[in-house]
Amino acid sequence: MITCRATSTARACARTSHSQMHRIQQRTLATVSPSLFPGEPSQPRLITSAIPGPKSKELSDSIGTFQENRAHGFVVDYAKSQGNWIADADGNVLLDMFAQIASIAIGYNNPDLIALAKTDEFITATMNRAALGSFPPTNWQELVETGLGTVKPKGLNNIFTAMCGSCANENAFKASFMAYRARERGEKAKFTPEEMSSCMKNRAPGSPDLSILSFTSAFHGRLFGSLSATRSKAIHKLDIPSFNWPVVEWPNVKYPFSQNARENAQAEKAALARVEEAIVNSKKQGSAYGPVAALIVEPIQSEGGDNHASPAFFQGLREVTKKHGVFMIVDEVQTGVGATGSFWAFDKWELKDAPDFVTFSKKMQAAGFYHNIETRPSMAYRNYNTWMGDPTRTMQARQIIRTIQDHDLVQKTDEVGNYIYSELNEMIVNGAGRGKVETLRGENAGTFIAFDGRTAEVRDELIMQMRKQGVHIGGCGERAVRLRPMLVFEKHHADLFLEKLEKALGQL
Amino acid sequence: MITCRATSTARACARTSHSQMHRIQQRTLATVSPSLFPGEPSQPRLITSAIPGPKSKELSDSIGTFQENRAHGFVVDYAKSQGNWIADADGNVLLDMFAQIASIAIGYNNPDLIALAKTDEFITATMNRAALGSFPPTNWQELVETGLGTVKPKGLNNIFTAMCGSCANENAFKASFMAYRARERGEKAKFTPEEMSSCMKNRAPGSPDLSILSFTSAFHGRLFGSLSATRSKAIHKLDIPSFNWPVVEWPNVKYPFSQNARENAQAEKAALARVEEAIVNSKKQGSAYGPVAALIVEPIQSEGGDNHASPAFFQGLREVTKKHGVFMIVDEVQTGVGATGSFWAFDKWELKDAPDFVTFSKKMQAAGFYHNIETRPSMAYRNYNTWMGDPTRTMQARQIIRTIQDHDLVQKTDEVGNYIYSELNEMIVNGAGRGKVETLRGENAGTFIAFDGRTAEVRDELIMQMRKQGVHIGGCGERAVRLRPMLVFEKHHADLFLEKLEKALGQL
Repeated sequence: MITCRATSTARACARTSHSQMHRIQQRTLATVSPSLFPGEPSQPRLITSAIPGPKSKELSDSIGTFQENRAHGFVVDYAKSQGNWIADADGNVLLDMFAQIASIAIGYNNPDLIALAKTDEFITATMNRAALGSFPPTNWQELVETGLGTVKPKGLNNIFTAMCGSCANENAFKASFMAYRARERGEKAKFTPEEMSSCMKNRAPGSPDLSILSFTSAFHGRLFGSLSATRSKAIHKLDIPSFNWPVVEWPNVKYPFSQNARENAQAEKAALARVEEAIVNSKKQGSAYGPVAALIVEPIQSEGGDNHASPAFFQGLREVTKKHGVFMIVDEVQTGVGATGSFWAFDKWELKDAPDFVTFSKKMQAAGFYHNIETRPSMAYRNYNTWMGDPTRTMQARQIIRTIQDHDLVQKTDEVGNYIYSELNEMIVNGAGRGKVETLRGENAGTFIAFDGRTAEVRDELIMQMRKQGVHIGGCGERAVRLRPMLVFEKHHADLFLEKLEKALGQL
Repeated sequence: MITCRATSTARACARTSHSQMHRIQQRTLATVSPSLFPGEPSQPRLITSAIPGPKSKELSDSIGTFQENRAHGFVVDYAKSQGNWIADADGNVLLDMFAQIASIAIGYNNPDLIALAKTDEFITATMNRAALGSFPPTNWQELVETGLGTVKPKGLNNIFTAMCGSCANENAFKASFMAYRARERGEKAKFTPEEMSSCMKNRAPGSPDLSILSFTSAFHGRLFGSLSATRSKAIHKLDIPSFNWPVVEWPNVKYPFSQNARENAQAEKAALARVEEAIVNSKKQGSAYGPVAALIVEPIQSEGGDNHASPAFFQGLREVTKKHGVFMIVDEVQTGVGATGSFWAFDKWELKDAPDFVTFSKKMQAAGFYHNIETRPSMAYRNYNTWMGDPTRTMQARQIIRTIQDHDLVQKTDEVGNYIYSELNEMIVNGAGRGKVETLRGENAGTFIAFDGRTAEVRDELIMQMRKQGVHIGGCGERAVRLRPMLVFEKHHADLFLEKLEKALGQL
């Protein structure tokens, strides 16, 4: 063990002290292709003493005259942003590890995307927006099959395209309810006159009292159906009428998973029992809520605080839902598209039976869900709307997927994530984070990493200190910092982040 | 009166026979600028004996392997579509009077939009999608103020940007509920601990039992909140759980309005009484539904069958809602952006007090709503999501608005619409439509014109016959044909349509 005295060199020391641990990772990292953004800055550029600076504030105020501006972080110069670096209105340039709330996949001004935008095919699709459900373009089949279709989860051959994460989830809810009732009704049975008339009055049996089961701390969106399944924070839900849908407590696990295997297995077993109980109760006479038609779950609860569970837990959920004829919706809106070290986070569960729905949005830029033929509605116009997605974003999704594949970005993210995780672990357990931050999450989860501030105030202060160091990170849950770098985040970015984090922790 | 014997010349005769009526209109029409699309076809091109033709069918079938395809009309070659003309996969070229379900404003491949797509500003915005609520681009204020801001209804200085019509309406519902509760709670009162905890369980008081009032035959979208206010057709609602929200019967008016003034005034008065009763009842103990926080209404019920009411009715709605502290949401998703002969359909009501919300989507390409400061939520993150709209579509909206203004397209649409209306009236009352189609609507409503087939079968057959004539029109309601041409639909297009309609009616 080398003795480290100067704070400024502590990080280098820490890395030396457990160099063995990273040998394999570093060797692998050395083989990846050179940076996708050779002209990226190597250091943050800090022009103003605080961010937002005066120009950001002025522009934000001008927006505030017609629109909510109290959630503004800073105002961005997107033309000057590049790769992992975000430029603001004042000329500050920060390493961006929040990436538009985890929705930029392959870097700002990615040359592949800029080239796509200039193609006639893209311009035609963007400026002649199709009502895709009725008048699809001649290239729609090819576009979907060569894009979204190349990453469809095994067993899910249908693709519903939508507009955003909330509406992806809500349309999956709708498909669940229709398929659930179709099963109850029997394959060839028609709607009854009573169903036809009662639904027009929003009453059963046409508008049945069915429900969606979700977990405490879950976030599934903010429209009326998705918000009814969202249980993240009161501020998201206050004053909004909700469906009386059931909720089950998320397993109370401890981190790191590898050191708490037995207790976590117990906690997950208990949660599975709660899920089964809620489902069974929902079907009893006099239940407080209607029969559960579907369960929705995030592979890692993101907005709710980066809460994890083991593959065994999700395998158990699949078994319980199968057993009771409940559809399983995996909400990959935030976890999908590579950040967890596999294209879909749920790939790591190695399920015997695929989930019924996998929803996506954010980094895919396009939104929607994968499903199978069983949950395709019985008739046209049942799950329909004017646009049924957006060809612009579908085309962008295809390019994002291609760029990810061309540059092995999922594999690379997995490796960089492992590196960050073990460096952070050292920093939190033995280094500058000790006593200030805690509860590291994201073992074997790519760069989908989080840790808690000791208090919410410490977390908020750390985020502000990091911004002063030139690194833009985000929070989630009550006191978590969540890392959401893009898939083009490389080892040298990670080293810069770790260096700045150490300094920021020193300021607390 | 000139005697007309040959069917083929009947249209010309009809026009001559009431030429006086159109003299003023035609004179005005003669002054408008030349066609925006000088290279447009002058006649349909019909390659296949039926539409969809074999290539359309083949492509539709290939889409059907992964996605619902039973609502497909035909598959479109958007690159070859131009102005008012839509080209299909088989090479057929049709006059398009449906316009992607009323969502194309200024023609296929409009040169202004194609030029926009090639600008660096557009490419940057599209390929670096901002989380607008937190990290807006430096040009956001300017972009909104010089685009959506230039058409903001009087008195509504706030703009909420969203993704589609359904989510525009749902976010207006959310804003209504929050503002309603804020008023009940008192301006400076905070959320109670009970509200904070109960909302996490989807229970009152945090998730209050408030409601949205809508009309029979209304269409406001298909997500869970908007669908609960939608009352168009059972197929839109079956099997989907709904909020127990109240519905009031749309006034039972007769057409044309100018000939049924007295009876319609009675019918509208009765409907206003029903609205007031529903609101008053909702606030009583033991009401079947929660207090009405907002009323939502389309200026012309579109999907529900093109049902009109007079300005006096809407003035009455504004009075009743004001009187009882109910927010008024005008859903201009389909009526907005010029097609009714004024930029917003509700401009014609000349309200003393502006509505509280005006929602838009479709032809605007961008979606969202206008409102005022009273309905801006009390805190950040209450009405929020990742994207908060789409800069791409916001920029496109600005160009659409500019092109409309540069070419006086609203005024022109008003004139062309009046021309079509009176020609159609003649054809239905005295001409080829007699006994086959009836109940013309759209007097003084621009090109927002509809009429009924005598039966649903007649309507469906007419739409197919029109397609064989090379004109693409759409249906709505139970047996209506709705005309939804773009704003670049000129008198010569109208004449072609009328000629083809006469022929198609002859085939019935």
